[in-house]
Amino acid sequence: MKADLNRLMTQRGLDAFIVGGGEHENSVRCYLTNGAHLTGGFVVQACNGEPLLVVNGMEIEEARKSGHRCVTYGDLGYYDLYREHGAQQASILLYGRLLEQVGLHAGRVGLYGVDDINATIQRFQQLNAHYEQYEFVGEGSPTLFDEAYLTKDAAEVERIRSVAERTSAVVAQVWEFISSHRSDASGRVVNAEGQPLTVGAVKRFARRALLDVGLEDTGMIFAPGRDGAFPHSRGDDPTELMVGVPIVFDFFPRELGGGYYHDMTRTWCIGHVPPPVQALYDDVMTAFDIALETYALGKPTHTLQEAVLDFFEAQGHPTPRTTNNPTEGYVHSLGHGIGLNIHEAPSMHHLKREDVFQVGNVVTIEPGLYYPDRAIGIRVEDSFIVAEDGQLLSITPFKKDLLLPLRG
Amino acid sequence: MKADLNRLMTQRGLDAFIVGGGEHENSVRCYLTNGAHLTGGFVVQACNGEPLLVVNGMEIEEARKSGHRCVTYGDLGYYDLYREHGAQQASILLYGRLLEQVGLHAGRVGLYGVDDINATIQRFQQLNAHYEQYEFVGEGSPTLFDEAYLTKDAAEVERIRSVAERTSAVVAQVWEFISSHRSDASGRVVNAEGQPLTVGAVKRFARRALLDVGLEDTGMIFAPGRDGAFPHSRGDDPTELMVGVPIVFDFFPRELGGGYYHDMTRTWCIGHVPPPVQALYDDVMTAFDIALETYALGKPTHTLQEAVLDFFEAQGHPTPRTTNNPTEGYVHSLGHGIGLNIHEAPSMHHLKREDVFQVGNVVTIEPGLYYPDRAIGIRVEDSFIVAEDGQLLSITPFKKDLLLPLRG
Repeated sequence: MKADLNRLMTQRGLDAFIVGGGEHENSVRCYLTNGAHLTGGFVVQACNGEPLLVVNGMEIEEARKSGHRCVTYGDLGYYDLYREHGAQQASILLYGRLLEQVGLHAGRVGLYGVDDINATIQRFQQLNAHYEQYEFVGEGSPTLFDEAYLTKDAAEVERIRSVAERTSAVVAQVWEFISSHRSDASGRVVNAEGQPLTVGAVKRFARRALLDVGLEDTGMIFAPGRDGAFPHSRGDDPTELMVGVPIVFDFFPRELGGGYYHDMTRTWCIGHVPPPVQALYDDVMTAFDIALETYALGKPTHTLQEAVLDFFEAQGHPTPRTTNNPTEGYVHSLGHGIGLNIHEAPSMHHLKREDVFQVGNVVTIEPGLYYPDRAIGIRVEDSFIVAEDGQLLSITPFKKDLLLPLRG
Repeated sequence: MKADLNRLMTQRGLDAFIVGGGEHENSVRCYLTNGAHLTGGFVVQACNGEPLLVVNGMEIEEARKSGHRCVTYGDLGYYDLYREHGAQQASILLYGRLLEQVGLHAGRVGLYGVDDINATIQRFQQLNAHYEQYEFVGEGSPTLFDEAYLTKDAAEVERIRSVAERTSAVVAQVWEFISSHRSDASGRVVNAEGQPLTVGAVKRFARRALLDVGLEDTGMIFAPGRDGAFPHSRGDDPTELMVGVPIVFDFFPRELGGGYYHDMTRTWCIGHVPPPVQALYDDVMTAFDIALETYALGKPTHTLQEAVLDFFEAQGHPTPRTTNNPTEGYVHSLGHGIGLNIHEAPSMHHLKREDVFQVGNVVTIEPGLYYPDRAIGIRVEDSFIVAEDGQLLSITPFKKDLLLPLRG
């Protein structure tokens, strides 16, 4: 959590960090600005100091919503630098002024945020060529912020729980919307006027319902049949819903305008459930239960994935441990951390073995089975918090029924 | 445009480029994948070759929608590398396999895309340390893709025009929605039941209307009074609309799920227009007309900004040419290119002097005046295409009335 940043900086020998980047979505900047919606600018922090925001004059009012000290580029003389030295050199000279503002006159500076890869490389080279007194450094995973994201503080948990409740409420509305339809003679799901219900119509309904509760869609998956058997295929708008065809509904909205995510998945079969679908669904739900039973505070996170791999392999499903290029069976990892990023630390992957469960983790658990040749994909996912007492608590209240009956 | 890429690579001495990056929005990847929605993976292209997509097996079906050749990480033996060498080294070794796939065994490779700054730095250092036969390079603005974005091809113009028309249609709906209200005795804008109309209600209406035409909001500004006098303040949801208060409505949605943007701004005064607001509005509209009159094919783009600076300064308004830290008067640049990025080349800034108008440019023109102490902000913006015949054509059909009358 944020309170760990100074300790994590000390561990890395960082005297300061600078979070920069352009107009790209930037979860680190979002993390440090307490929800102020900046489209640019820097957050600079010396080890054991407070964050300083440096922004375009046009964004100073928005920046102040962060509660942190804020100055503009103009305050730091950036426009004089620009006139005298041109854009590229001015941006390099600005970094020195950022660091002087937080009282750092020499030392090791970590660079974070999100930016164009080409621009980052050039800036990194120019910064280290220009400044003798500073060493600018990057780092790979797990980074300073990866480690901070591992656990959430009380204010974050409150926002995360609220997003979870609102997301589940929207899923309940989608269920009711579909359920209000009927089937026609050819097995299509149709409305009272006999018009077919499409993937696009369901997604439109869900997106509007999200807006009404202050959330936004970030690319939901609503994928029937064969589409659902490719975990990242999102479903095509014109596809008509049919009874007896399993649909993977993976829903991961976030706070409107950017912020905390929720992540949940249900698999629904409308009208009736064919036995092969039920059999695979039962395996997925058993895997889900095995994951929860395997959990204990302090245990390595990958042990849950390994328990699920053991089970799926015993049932005869291919897994990423038994094949190099998995496209059927169990083809992904069991879960991931979630916060301001849809995927963040901790990992549960069986090849990444660094994390253990600790209080404040927020993670998904999402076993699935995929058989494209049989046009069946199944995935079930809740998000969980490791509570103060060490319990792994689901924050996704919506039911896990496979059969979605039609009442129309 | 895309057809320029090989020429631009040759100019830069690039033998290939690799577009990478994680789950961040990545306009370069979007540009090269023809609208396929990938959440990761690489696009690799040798000079005078065709794009190759390298993706996670879960995204292979989505990747194929690009029409390009696609392979998975598994096809390139990535998971074996991972097991043998660990995640970090495997990702470095993968780059060699990417380049071999496009037939490049030695040479200079440009790295593009969007990623975490810290990760980019580490990867850049490791790639150049590992490979003797390749030199991996970045570059600052204007980059290979900045220059490609300068002009749009016919397929892009068609999508851009469609987004423009749908955006304008939504603005017309918002106008009608507000206009259906009435004012109460205290000058508030209220509905038939006397309930006040808020900024949040207008934004909700606009967001829903966007979804209905296949567009998504990316953070619209609907900012009355003093908020509108800070060009990047977005307006606070609880603010009640009042007659006679100018509202800056800057609307820049894009294709749903990511894609081409439109950008337009109107300033509206509900019910009646106070004379000081009208006077500033007239100056902004005169500046708008001056910009259009100054335009000519082949002319440097910054000449339009300079003509507008001349006019505003003659009228006594502070500008970025007369003050270092502009917070009142004319505080920004006249316009910018627009495409898969809300801001891209060409620039019109008076300090950036590299661009000239050419056929295929898509740009905004958006003069504004801002006086926070008087609680007045004014901005008017259309987007334009430089057509085949060299004309600068507005693609934003909505009217530019300042007075929004109430009919309720």
